[in-house]
Amino acid sequence: MFESAELGHKISKKVYDAEVPKLRVDLLNAQFELSKNGKFPVIILVGGVDGAGKGETVNLLNEWMDPRFIQVHAMGTPTDEEISRPPMWRFWRALPPRGRIGVFFGSWYTQPIISRVLRKSKSSQLTENLEQINRFEKMLTDEGALIIKFWFHLSKEAQKARLKALEKDPKTRWRVTDTDWERYKIYDKFRKVSEHALRETSTAEAPWFVVEGTDPNYRGLTVGKILLDAMRNRLDQQPVKPHIDVPPLRESIDKVDLLDRLDLTLNLGKRKFDTELEKYQGKLNLLTRDPRFATISVIALFEGSDAGGKGGAIRRITAALDARHYKIVPVAAPTEEERAQPYLWRFWRNIPGKGGVTIFDRSWYGRVLVERVEKFCTEQDWMRAYSEINDFEEQLINNNILVVKFWLAISKDEQLRRFKEREQIGFKQFKITEEDWRNREKWELYEQAVCDMVDRTSTEIAPWVLVEANDKNYARIKILKTLCQRIEQAFK
Amino acid sequence: MFESAELGHKISKKVYDAEVPKLRVDLLNAQFELSKNGKFPVIILVGGVDGAGKGETVNLLNEWMDPRFIQVHAMGTPTDEEISRPPMWRFWRALPPRGRIGVFFGSWYTQPIISRVLRKSKSSQLTENLEQINRFEKMLTDEGALIIKFWFHLSKEAQKARLKALEKDPKTRWRVTDTDWERYKIYDKFRKVSEHALRETSTAEAPWFVVEGTDPNYRGLTVGKILLDAMRNRLDQQPVKPHIDVPPLRESIDKVDLLDRLDLTLNLGKRKFDTELEKYQGKLNLLTRDPRFATISVIALFEGSDAGGKGGAIRRITAALDARHYKIVPVAAPTEEERAQPYLWRFWRNIPGKGGVTIFDRSWYGRVLVERVEKFCTEQDWMRAYSEINDFEEQLINNNILVVKFWLAISKDEQLRRFKEREQIGFKQFKITEEDWRNREKWELYEQAVCDMVDRTSTEIAPWVLVEANDKNYARIKILKTLCQRIEQAFK
Repeated sequence: MFESAELGHKISKKVYDAEVPKLRVDLLNAQFELSKNGKFPVIILVGGVDGAGKGETVNLLNEWMDPRFIQVHAMGTPTDEEISRPPMWRFWRALPPRGRIGVFFGSWYTQPIISRVLRKSKSSQLTENLEQINRFEKMLTDEGALIIKFWFHLSKEAQKARLKALEKDPKTRWRVTDTDWERYKIYDKFRKVSEHALRETSTAEAPWFVVEGTDPNYRGLTVGKILLDAMRNRLDQQPVKPHIDVPPLRESIDKVDLLDRLDLTLNLGKRKFDTELEKYQGKLNLLTRDPRFATISVIALFEGSDAGGKGGAIRRITAALDARHYKIVPVAAPTEEERAQPYLWRFWRNIPGKGGVTIFDRSWYGRVLVERVEKFCTEQDWMRAYSEINDFEEQLINNNILVVKFWLAISKDEQLRRFKEREQIGFKQFKITEEDWRNREKWELYEQAVCDMVDRTSTEIAPWVLVEANDKNYARIKILKTLCQRIEQAFK
Repeated sequence: MFESAELGHKISKKVYDAEVPKLRVDLLNAQFELSKNGKFPVIILVGGVDGAGKGETVNLLNEWMDPRFIQVHAMGTPTDEEISRPPMWRFWRALPPRGRIGVFFGSWYTQPIISRVLRKSKSSQLTENLEQINRFEKMLTDEGALIIKFWFHLSKEAQKARLKALEKDPKTRWRVTDTDWERYKIYDKFRKVSEHALRETSTAEAPWFVVEGTDPNYRGLTVGKILLDAMRNRLDQQPVKPHIDVPPLRESIDKVDLLDRLDLTLNLGKRKFDTELEKYQGKLNLLTRDPRFATISVIALFEGSDAGGKGGAIRRITAALDARHYKIVPVAAPTEEERAQPYLWRFWRNIPGKGGVTIFDRSWYGRVLVERVEKFCTEQDWMRAYSEINDFEEQLINNNILVVKFWLAISKDEQLRRFKEREQIGFKQFKITEEDWRNREKWELYEQAVCDMVDRTSTEIAPWVLVEANDKNYARIKILKTLCQRIEQAFK
């Protein structure tokens, strides 16, 4: 895999000086077009051997292009905030929006490769990491991103020569650290592990480009031209949605579904409700103040029919929590900033750190509910969302984040009653809109979407809790109780 | 994930009898259309809980449809021939061609799931297996296959009830074995592992359909309708090639490539050649008769410029081998049967068993060489082939198959000399055609394709050996020597 990058490629100063001006103009034009049409983000990954000119090349790109629309992320040691969250969180927050270029200097490949080289992780761990990376990058390209991955390579001899040369020159001596020589010692192991990583992750949509790092002119010009080719190719293309064949989902042939089987007559009298409410709110409060709570975090998400009672249920939870520890994220139509990112981005932003609670009032499941029913996205998009969501939640759970998902189910009649009530009661009028009435007409389509959602995303690690919510008292207690139980289980 | 399949779904006899005739006609029509246009194969996977009616449903499908164009594969204990090859070999040989339906009763999921349930494999092994399955199924769908995956589910109580009921009836008692009750005991573990497997492998292109197995009418009708939907959806579609965005590859900017750097003046005098030939042929012969050879197998593949000397080199190898142990596979344009399958199929057919040697005269690399240059496939197709090929070779190597890949490089001048010579010498005239002259005109395009191929598929586990072949003696000895070395390494 590295053969071609050990040939001693060179470009003379004369050729370089002659070619760079045109390349710069072309790159700037491509960048301008990109930022103007804002159709896709460009994600550039930079990895490779130490001393192969990664930093210099990134600086060069910045110099050649308009630095206002390009952002370099040097991913070093994770911050406290980052350590407190799943490993991919730091990359999600740094993703460039459509129309922009993001350069990851040190990327999601760094930690898996280095850990394996230093024998801090097993080979099976690396396999799992690479598999996650493949899924992540596939999601990004499915969402329209252009990913270009550069691997800067030096042969062992070239690396040694380069370190020596840098040491010899008083002006660059400071750049060679003990770490560099330490790294040189593990060159062979590093080469082997990275070759494996490159092989497993070089896909048609996001292939690796291995670049020989010895000669600065060759290196710079090669990277510039590959980048230009890839951007031009994409900009000049007719916008074709990635097409995949999706076998259609259908409703159960006996018309019986999960929601039909809920006993919506379940209810709780006022007195019983008051006792239970006090009991479980007290319990929840204690649980969140338990020292073990600082090692986990909680995501409680609420989906449900319109007028299903999400707001009221959420207030019964927050009443038991310290305001410093929770955050409520009401999910409405995405903002302009959010629309410029993959749909999961706005949820990644709000992942709680250790000891934190985030309550989502509607959630990423909008993709397979409203966006599916209202055809805001294609069938392909919402079909792939099921596994993307499962991946996402798996990452959360692997990082000690409890994911508790509530669906608040009411009957169609009960919804009508509540709609009418809302129209009557002054302070509730803002809660009922034309849109609610329109959605109601699509009741069956939503019901189908809910059942498919539960079938495809209710997993042992993150099961859906279907809440019989015709009676608000019953629903609120079930929710509080479930939340307490799940936290208790997490303590075990 | 299994919630909807525990609701006690039922279809009455009346409804069933009313619906089946129309469904059968529709299924037969879809099947007829499929076999007539032959555009894609249908691959049906059947898995799930014991006693959930897997067998009955498969029989039903056979009864409903035209059994001439549907083939059921009950994958039980692997045969000797299968054990001697990589685990996926048995599935490759059973893949349905375009226009046909293949039902896998017991599929590539069975062994990974069962091993994990019985704790014969680690969870990291399962992860790796599922990842391989995802890649395999992606390759199949990219190649145009329609994959429909059915999982037949029973709740624990339903499974128990069903086993009891079968036991009670004298006519069905024989069907309940001790194994069934053993399996019932591990129901919970089985459920957990399969839920994990389903979650990781339910993709947009090949989603799982979980079907409740309690009621035969419900089960049969559901499977029939899902199958019909999926086939109709695909048959009625405009033929859209799966589209993926591929960043273009380019030749090295300094025009220096791997082939340029070969020293084609390397040569070997007649006397030296004779000695070395005897030496290495003798060595190779001994190696293949070593008892350790029976635990491995060897694939030697030859690619190279036209008139590069593949045939002569191959004969020098086979001269040292026992004819019972080797097989030469000359690869020309695919046959009709082969064209109806994914491009790797015809190579999987020829994977040697333990102790065997297969020599490929041209190989699967045709995909990224001639098919790329002559535009027999799309850019997307050959771009994804690099990782498909790497996956393929990794499977071979993990199964103790040595993969030795030779590229025979000659200069453009030497080719011309050999072409002319062939035209002169009577018995060599059949070896030179119009096509050879046409290919020669595309020398630079082929050279670029070769370099990309080496860059993207020369891996530590299966490196390319570039052979300087202007001098036939030198080339033949280098090849024999390399082969001996690689076999010796494999013995260690």
